[in-house]
Amino acid sequence: MFFASDNTSPVAPQVLAALERANAGYAAGYGSDAVTQEVRAMIRDTLDAPQAAVHLVGTGTAANALSLALFCPPWAAVYCHRVAHVEEDECGAPEFYTGGAKLVLIDGDHARMDPAALADSIAFTARAGVHNVQRGMVTLTNATEAGTIYTPDEVAAIADIARAHGLPVHMDGARFANAVARLGCHPADLTWRAGVDVLSFGGTKNGLMGVEAVVIFNPEKAWEFELRRKRGGHLFSKHRYLAAQMQAYLADGLWLQLAGQANAMADRLSAGIAALPQARLVHPTQANAVFAAWPRDGHRRAQDAGAAYYLWPGNQTMEGPGDEQVAARLVASWCTTPDEVDSFLSLIG
Amino acid sequence: MFFASDNTSPVAPQVLAALERANAGYAAGYGSDAVTQEVRAMIRDTLDAPQAAVHLVGTGTAANALSLALFCPPWAAVYCHRVAHVEEDECGAPEFYTGGAKLVLIDGDHARMDPAALADSIAFTARAGVHNVQRGMVTLTNATEAGTIYTPDEVAAIADIARAHGLPVHMDGARFANAVARLGCHPADLTWRAGVDVLSFGGTKNGLMGVEAVVIFNPEKAWEFELRRKRGGHLFSKHRYLAAQMQAYLADGLWLQLAGQANAMADRLSAGIAALPQARLVHPTQANAVFAAWPRDGHRRAQDAGAAYYLWPGNQTMEGPGDEQVAARLVASWCTTPDEVDSFLSLIG
Amino acid sequence: MFFASDNTSPVAPQVLAALERANAGYAAGYGSDAVTQEVRAMIRDTLDAPQAAVHLVGTGTAANALSLALFCPPWAAVYCHRVAHVEEDECGAPEFYTGGAKLVLIDGDHARMDPAALADSIAFTARAGVHNVQRGMVTLTNATEAGTIYTPDEVAAIADIARAHGLPVHMDGARFANAVARLGCHPADLTWRAGVDVLSFGGTKNGLMGVEAVVIFNPEKAWEFELRRKRGGHLFSKHRYLAAQMQAYLADGLWLQLAGQANAMADRLSAGIAALPQARLVHPTQANAVFAAWPRDGHRRAQDAGAAYYLWPGNQTMEGPGDEQVAARLVASWCTTPDEVDSFLSLIG
Amino acid sequence: MFFASDNTSPVAPQVLAALERANAGYAAGYGSDAVTQEVRAMIRDTLDAPQAAVHLVGTGTAANALSLALFCPPWAAVYCHRVAHVEEDECGAPEFYTGGAKLVLIDGDHARMDPAALADSIAFTARAGVHNVQRGMVTLTNATEAGTIYTPDEVAAIADIARAHGLPVHMDGARFANAVARLGCHPADLTWRAGVDVLSFGGTKNGLMGVEAVVIFNPEKAWEFELRRKRGGHLFSKHRYLAAQMQAYLADGLWLQLAGQANAMADRLSAGIAALPQARLVHPTQANAVFAAWPRDGHRRAQDAGAAYYLWPGNQTMEGPGDEQVAARLVASWCTTPDEVDSFLSLIG
Repeated sequence: MFFASDNTSPVAPQVLAALERANAGYAAGYGSDAVTQEVRAMIRDTLDAPQAAVHLVGTGTAANALSLALFCPPWAAVYCHRVAHVEEDECGAPEFYTGGAKLVLIDGDHARMDPAALADSIAFTARAGVHNVQRGMVTLTNATEAGTIYTPDEVAAIADIARAHGLPVHMDGARFANAVARLGCHPADLTWRAGVDVLSFGGTKNGLMGVEAVVIFNPEKAWEFELRRKRGGHLFSKHRYLAAQMQAYLADGLWLQLAGQANAMADRLSAGIAALPQARLVHPTQANAVFAAWPRDGHRRAQDAGAAYYLWPGNQTMEGPGDEQVAARLVASWCTTPDEVDSFLSLIG
Repeated sequence: MFFASDNTSPVAPQVLAALERANAGYAAGYGSDAVTQEVRAMIRDTLDAPQAAVHLVGTGTAANALSLALFCPPWAAVYCHRVAHVEEDECGAPEFYTGGAKLVLIDGDHARMDPAALADSIAFTARAGVHNVQRGMVTLTNATEAGTIYTPDEVAAIADIARAHGLPVHMDGARFANAVARLGCHPADLTWRAGVDVLSFGGTKNGLMGVEAVVIFNPEKAWEFELRRKRGGHLFSKHRYLAAQMQAYLADGLWLQLAGQANAMADRLSAGIAALPQARLVHPTQANAVFAAWPRDGHRRAQDAGAAYYLWPGNQTMEGPGDEQVAARLVASWCTTPDEVDSFLSLIG
Repeated sequence: MFFASDNTSPVAPQVLAALERANAGYAAGYGSDAVTQEVRAMIRDTLDAPQAAVHLVGTGTAANALSLALFCPPWAAVYCHRVAHVEEDECGAPEFYTGGAKLVLIDGDHARMDPAALADSIAFTARAGVHNVQRGMVTLTNATEAGTIYTPDEVAAIADIARAHGLPVHMDGARFANAVARLGCHPADLTWRAGVDVLSFGGTKNGLMGVEAVVIFNPEKAWEFELRRKRGGHLFSKHRYLAAQMQAYLADGLWLQLAGQANAMADRLSAGIAALPQARLVHPTQANAVFAAWPRDGHRRAQDAGAAYYLWPGNQTMEGPGDEQVAARLVASWCTTPDEVDSFLSLIG
Repeated sequence: MFFASDNTSPVAPQVLAALERANAGYAAGYGSDAVTQEVRAMIRDTLDAPQAAVHLVGTGTAANALSLALFCPPWAAVYCHRVAHVEEDECGAPEFYTGGAKLVLIDGDHARMDPAALADSIAFTARAGVHNVQRGMVTLTNATEAGTIYTPDEVAAIADIARAHGLPVHMDGARFANAVARLGCHPADLTWRAGVDVLSFGGTKNGLMGVEAVVIFNPEKAWEFELRRKRGGHLFSKHRYLAAQMQAYLADGLWLQLAGQANAMADRLSAGIAALPQARLVHPTQANAVFAAWPRDGHRRAQDAGAAYYLWPGNQTMEGPGDEQVAARLVASWCTTPDEVDSFLSLIG
């Protein structure tokens, strides 16, 4: 019953097998190996983006911060949702990599930016010319930090506002697979066809050991990205091992299969909780995370039985009346089992 | 015959096996797993430094740049050898992470800083007070970029100069194992007992997939390092896989065994070249790299047969008279075989 | 009728005379001249802070950004009011000088931080440890951007919250003179005795040509400030001309006299507007700026007659119904005359 | 006998008079005043560069560092002479403003870059692709830090090398007036016609209080400069006072007249020293500074009589044998008198 995060899961067996296969003989370093070339082609195919530049890094924070730095000058604003990972969970990596850009926080239900709020904020920015931070770029997360998703139309609604001001758009896709698996759409429809310029294509949370791809749909800035990646210490010498993971991930649709499993387990959890008389969902369950509240006594039983997850928001505690509602985040992963879910439900119900 | 770099080698089988063992069930992320704790203890034991702070990162550039940033303010000088990796091969990562510190280049034979040159340079720095960049810290590489080493006494000679000015000392130990294996000394004698404050303890070039440890001997700055690492995007969520590699590396002296193999192959290559009538060594062979020159015709035979290595310095070419001396760098690794060495020697001789 | 900003005013005659006096013969550069030493002593006396470090710079943005950089690490939060000058009017200078700190916006009426909102925000920060930006420092503006002031007790209420978390406090005193003149308090009571660690002591908006003093009450960081100032390009070689201005400003209470004149003219303007049947004050008038709204027709008459001021907030326009309320900011300065005020009032009424 | 620096001189009387004239009534801030517009036109005329963007700042360090930051990305090299002001006297301001660019030091006699050495250094840079800092830009100082000058042809020789690699060229013209006055050439011939892209047009060392102009010959980056200047805290609100100084400086050729006076006094000093039997010039005297050596006893007599200047290089002392040669820097300014020079000569001879 480990619902603390999808990054507490192990690596998918197909991925480990790929690492073993990659471990034969010498290979050129820094991305000059054959597997890396193949992975680039696979990602371009997957996204139907034959010109896109593809770069691998080891962490989601690196993927996001480097992407933002590539498109946003130091004196400009990055518009993001108030609870975006770049704002809340990266210890200021975006500010570090951009050289001091300002994250401007946009509200919106269930961790999705409200387009009108975004438009207002952009309109407000740089109203006094040189005295203000300028308009920079927009970043949105899909699937979001609240376990919700943007549809292609919803992404396009955000991107259209950005476009109208000439601003590039980044998508933090640490859980991109979960969004695509849920929507059943073509990944291109959720990204460049909807107006996304650069995508953090996540793997780590969905069965890899530690690999994310940055996909730049217009490759003009590819060389600058290479320099920024190296300068950030994110160019791996034994690059074949990153490539091998990603190769396995993309082969035979493994990435969507793993995400589908995680989503299904979140659905099972969500449906189970929704059926409990004392419980309620805090956010709709659209990806692999469930945000819900139920009485503290249920939390006590679950935690006594070893269930791992976070109270959410984090200022809640296990101290207090047993019948008081306490909210939590429960994240399913590719390896979550129906038994884990059902055991958990039986404890909290 | 792959002598291009030790980072073109595969991962040692013991390390791959460790990754498989680590891949069982859930594990807390970001370094809170049990293996990471164990690895910290193992490194402290290895270095006889029970108080040291130990942090894992994925690349040598990250280890170095974060170490320098931890100890050198933006307005100060990092004294390093003219051919140091931090100066030549990190695309300005030290400048990026420190916020713009100045690398001041020190000369010295065979990539080893000359202590007198270092002392002169420090004395010159900040001579005009606030107008100048200030004295910051010293970094030295062991084994060096020229395949030579500093003995404990030589490290101490450098560190004593730094100490006399209150400056911290960093050691870039991307090939630390090769230096220790060669010297047969205690790793503590080569580091903190000689005056080193922070060590990049390398693994990637010596059989790991991509892990380096930063060891801070005085742990007061450990928390700041954590923040800098996270902010740089170098905190891995599935941290157990970094830890597992390092655990296997340290267990049963594997790190020194692998480095010893690489050193022995470099010795065999070096002795073979030295015995050739038309060849000469450019630097003494003290670690796992051989720098030597021999006639261009010999290079042609080797490269036609598929040997991989770099002409060094890089401004030389394969164009020109066949009997002209052309210099090269040949790097042996843990998996270099006597057969590879002997085949190569027979081609160039 | 020039109410656009107090920085559109000329230099006070006493200040210009001081520049002429200073212009005799040679003088040591970079602050080593005699007048600079004297000014340091005068500011220490004025603030009853004999140990304070005093540094002159040429702009308020430099004073603020350098002050924040001195006390806030790159990975931390600067808590400021949502409309603070550091947030809205410095094009990201605080982010630039701090190396990417995050400005966290606190609400509160009339541009004054609400202590409870500040406390909540601090409590929320760094809740997830290394993943979050850390707690850094607090900055408040006095007099504020809305023409209001904090009393010594109100400053202390803010500073006490900061103190409780070990956070330093900066005061942006671009209009510090206006606050002190209004309160009639001792400047020490409004700063270090209330818990302020570093003060931007403004002069430019109150009759100087371009000089602000940064006062660091605990001088331990004085040398670091010197280095940051030089590195930022803010150390003037012909420093005597900055010092001469500040000397004249402090002599015989000129700074409070000038501020008192400006405040009095704002009072006259404010009282006049408040007496108009169709007008209302947006913020209480406590310093030298009046924020008020009146019908658009009144604005038209004033602007046709050449009155200069800003509609505030800036998204309002002169297009629209003549009887619609339109808000504006009117700033008085040391050289505003009763005639200017009265002429203006007669136009808008 | 004040030869310590040209920045110890007072302000020219015409400049002070201009400040007084400027001090009348209200004026729009931040460069929107009429005098600033006029100054822009005057500088364009002076440089025969009708399209150039012109921006005023308060210090030479700001002018230089902002100019470099405008043209050099953080991951690139700024080629400068080993003793350039940007390397030696700005406490790392170029590194700060560029975000960590690397200053690569070029040798050459008398503080003038040797074109061949520059060409070699550029050729060496970025030889290993992404692993290295990239080629960025070239900066040269005219007149140099050694009191020598580059002729238009010599500037062109440097700039041609830069151009051949697509690199922009900056000229640090803190003493540009001294170079132009000496050469008698058109300022355009020494700058854009010779290949210079951006010029720090100095005023402070030559009779102003503290104003330098940054002239960008291709104005495409003018807006970015505005943002960088504001963000650096170098946009003055009461901008008219900077403009007034520069206006007086340019009117009626005052800038060249003042520089001519300084140059003439340096010539007188230089000729006098050269005529002394025990003295010798260290560098040719081509601008307003004399670098020479003479016996320590002569220094003692001069210093006892109150002469102010620096021993140069700074590691020499007044301790030691009286007949030992000790070198010094003597800087003449617009207000140096023949009497001062002759008194000094009579002391050291």
